[in-house]
Amino acid sequence: MGIRLVPSACGYLHLHNSNERSGNSFGDQMNSTQKYGRAFEALKKCCGEEWAAFTEHEFVRRLGNGTLPREAYLHYLRQDYVFLLHFSRAWALAAVKAETIDEIQLAANTLHGLITFEMSLHVETCRKEGMSERELAETKEELENLAYTRYAIDAGLSGDFLDILLTLAPCVLGYGEIGSSLSNVRTSDEYLPWIETYAGEEYQSVCRDLGQMMDGALERRLGKQYQSLPRWNSLSSRFTDATRLEAAFWQMGLRP
Amino acid sequence: MGIRLVPSACGYLHLHNSNERSGNSFGDQMNSTQKYGRAFEALKKCCGEEWAAFTEHEFVRRLGNGTLPREAYLHYLRQDYVFLLHFSRAWALAAVKAETIDEIQLAANTLHGLITFEMSLHVETCRKEGMSERELAETKEELENLAYTRYAIDAGLSGDFLDILLTLAPCVLGYGEIGSSLSNVRTSDEYLPWIETYAGEEYQSVCRDLGQMMDGALERRLGKQYQSLPRWNSLSSRFTDATRLEAAFWQMGLRP
Amino acid sequence: MGIRLVPSACGYLHLHNSNERSGNSFGDQMNSTQKYGRAFEALKKCCGEEWAAFTEHEFVRRLGNGTLPREAYLHYLRQDYVFLLHFSRAWALAAVKAETIDEIQLAANTLHGLITFEMSLHVETCRKEGMSERELAETKEELENLAYTRYAIDAGLSGDFLDILLTLAPCVLGYGEIGSSLSNVRTSDEYLPWIETYAGEEYQSVCRDLGQMMDGALERRLGKQYQSLPRWNSLSSRFTDATRLEAAFWQMGLRP
Amino acid sequence: MGIRLVPSACGYLHLHNSNERSGNSFGDQMNSTQKYGRAFEALKKCCGEEWAAFTEHEFVRRLGNGTLPREAYLHYLRQDYVFLLHFSRAWALAAVKAETIDEIQLAANTLHGLITFEMSLHVETCRKEGMSERELAETKEELENLAYTRYAIDAGLSGDFLDILLTLAPCVLGYGEIGSSLSNVRTSDEYLPWIETYAGEEYQSVCRDLGQMMDGALERRLGKQYQSLPRWNSLSSRFTDATRLEAAFWQMGLRP
Repeated sequence: MGIRLVPSACGYLHLHNSNERSGNSFGDQMNSTQKYGRAFEALKKCCGEEWAAFTEHEFVRRLGNGTLPREAYLHYLRQDYVFLLHFSRAWALAAVKAETIDEIQLAANTLHGLITFEMSLHVETCRKEGMSERELAETKEELENLAYTRYAIDAGLSGDFLDILLTLAPCVLGYGEIGSSLSNVRTSDEYLPWIETYAGEEYQSVCRDLGQMMDGALERRLGKQYQSLPRWNSLSSRFTDATRLEAAFWQMGLRP
Repeated sequence: MGIRLVPSACGYLHLHNSNERSGNSFGDQMNSTQKYGRAFEALKKCCGEEWAAFTEHEFVRRLGNGTLPREAYLHYLRQDYVFLLHFSRAWALAAVKAETIDEIQLAANTLHGLITFEMSLHVETCRKEGMSERELAETKEELENLAYTRYAIDAGLSGDFLDILLTLAPCVLGYGEIGSSLSNVRTSDEYLPWIETYAGEEYQSVCRDLGQMMDGALERRLGKQYQSLPRWNSLSSRFTDATRLEAAFWQMGLRP
Repeated sequence: MGIRLVPSACGYLHLHNSNERSGNSFGDQMNSTQKYGRAFEALKKCCGEEWAAFTEHEFVRRLGNGTLPREAYLHYLRQDYVFLLHFSRAWALAAVKAETIDEIQLAANTLHGLITFEMSLHVETCRKEGMSERELAETKEELENLAYTRYAIDAGLSGDFLDILLTLAPCVLGYGEIGSSLSNVRTSDEYLPWIETYAGEEYQSVCRDLGQMMDGALERRLGKQYQSLPRWNSLSSRFTDATRLEAAFWQMGLRP
Repeated sequence: MGIRLVPSACGYLHLHNSNERSGNSFGDQMNSTQKYGRAFEALKKCCGEEWAAFTEHEFVRRLGNGTLPREAYLHYLRQDYVFLLHFSRAWALAAVKAETIDEIQLAANTLHGLITFEMSLHVETCRKEGMSERELAETKEELENLAYTRYAIDAGLSGDFLDILLTLAPCVLGYGEIGSSLSNVRTSDEYLPWIETYAGEEYQSVCRDLGQMMDGALERRLGKQYQSLPRWNSLSSRFTDATRLEAAFWQMGLRP
């Protein structure tokens, strides 16, 4: 993370090939994992093992097989409540930085959805688990929680619309992949409502829209060959940093 | 406008009295102009003649008596389309700066309303006047238009939630007052749809909510005696600067 | 100005040719006007007549032939004092957005130079003209003054380092060109100290450093062919918008 | 940390008393720890044990008694190099948010000092320890490092000048206290150059200037009784959050 003085491993030179490959192969286009668009696939490749460290984290596996301790789940929910507030603020910053009406609208809709519906859903879920909203509001934000949202907000302040979009994407799209995946491989119903929220058509549709927006926003600014530009290197670093911070968030969740 | 090195005329010392007066008088509380809250009334007093220069501008009077040239109205509509985009971005910045869920929600709802409903309404109004959305999108933003929205966005970047809130308020609440007033005093139906939009209950309700939010946001941070603090001086300067910039916007509208 | 929905006249397609031409011709490289770098030359071409409207403005010509009324000059100096404060803030924002140590250092040095030396020089110049610092500090910022600096700050908030750099460049480099030019063509010594400040080696060296930084910052992010990207279109629009706002500043200066 | 919905323990009500006490007692004024001003003393009291957890952290004690492993010190230096870059960016943001020339100048000077002198000193120190600047530049920023600087930058984006000032203060003034204290109590010369840097008159003078600026900036905005305002509560929370994040930074340093 941080200020880049030296190109990272997944540089723009190496991407040239993977780019051509992914663009031409029929198999790739049919691949169900491409459902969130071209840029997302390329970013995951840059990310390498970090992506799996996030989306296949022990916390995730235990949601699927039902072995996640209730206490860890509640810890996660409490922190996620605070996360949601700052994640909403980060999406608001994306709206500040939008350059077209479509971009403002996608960011505004996401913000509105997060702070209105998601927040209510979250409070309701917590209520069912025995936590009042007042208790939630008293949650002390932990380091790993704070790190991701403030990193995203700084990405927005220091970079442009693409920087913040690609920093927010791992969270939104990662949950989409995790939901889809767990709905197929889960061996327990213990955390089914959580899984169904993110596997559900409504959330999946949000993911597809965001993926499409990313593809459009990249091409509109950088042209079709954007993966051959040095700019791609710093953008994919944003995505990778955010992915690492998401994995740290799961790790925090496991802590008692 | 700009960086304050010397207290302006409506300083916090003088307000001490007006504050006590406005807080205690029964008549003031009944006054129909207090419908948007206590802070708004105090801010208008600080503003002095600038407030009338905006809300009773020649452009406004001519909307009411029907003598505003159609060309001037169309000029205004075109510029207002661009204004709406940046005004939405400024409200998004208010959401970034909110400190409570209520504050984020009010800012997010306003942003959502502006970029979704207002924008559609605006495009539809312009279409009826013979302007396509493409034509609108090609509008060259004029100096007076740019000045207000960028001033508001900078107020948000340099100050806190209160600074941007009080910079956005003159536009929202001023249109509320103008709409109410014109619906009573107009002598022509030429611009009735415009007047009814802002005089209507839906818009008036938005104004009351914003006014209430302002009162709450000020007290939550600065206590009940906020008008006796030096901070009030810089906040009311924001309101006055924004009011002047709104008057300049009307003046631009009159230009052929 | 404002949000771009439609490519402007100086689009990235047309630049392709001019780009190749300017890069290969020996004559161009020798051209004294290329002293501030390759990007600056290309940006001026995109700007077209707007550049001359700024650098050859009536205010500038009258500085050179000594016919500028003293009152107009003092009006300009007073506004420029306020301008300097917000222009400094804009350079501080550029430092926030820098991605390398060199970029932070250039922005930090510029900020430091502006707020320490330039400001003292300005106060001293005004003192000689009979204006105290207190009087300067009471200056009411005018619309055209406010418009440029707030536009620049918003360019910084909404875009990345390049956006704010290219929005600040017309002011810094334009004054460099104006100073150089007036030192050659002036027919009066009435405003010689002003002319010598900007024609002098110290200021010219600042301009060359900035121009070089612009070339490097563009290539580091967008590669050598940056003028063929759609991104170039929005960047050159920033430069053109800022140039227009600079011309409006001179126009304000002429006003009594 | 995070969005405040419920007043924290050190609320504005309780401070009323401690405020009067600290303002009137002769002993307090003589107290050597008040050397960085009135606000700093009050903020430390709000902070409670968190302040000691930072300034008397095991990492600090081991710097003083020479038992800090060289490896831990180098780990700290590497991370501190990256920290310095983002800390500079945060000070640049403070300059963006300043409201008076004095405030801009203090922030600009601090930024300039950090990115010019401190950075050179740091690179030189690391070189002596066998680390090249290239090696430093390749440092992977750790979570605890990232958390503090991005929290500060977000405090600046969401709040006003006071918010970012009080978030940056624990680092600057805490190192001042640590340096002073270690220069008195150290039992080893192992880390003497580090200690002398922060105990030295030059750094102590920076601390006194910052403390004085804090006192002035608070009173200029909130009046002399600022500790009785709800605003004080959120400001002291910023200071406490930042203090916690500083302690986490030391903890990271201890990690192999």
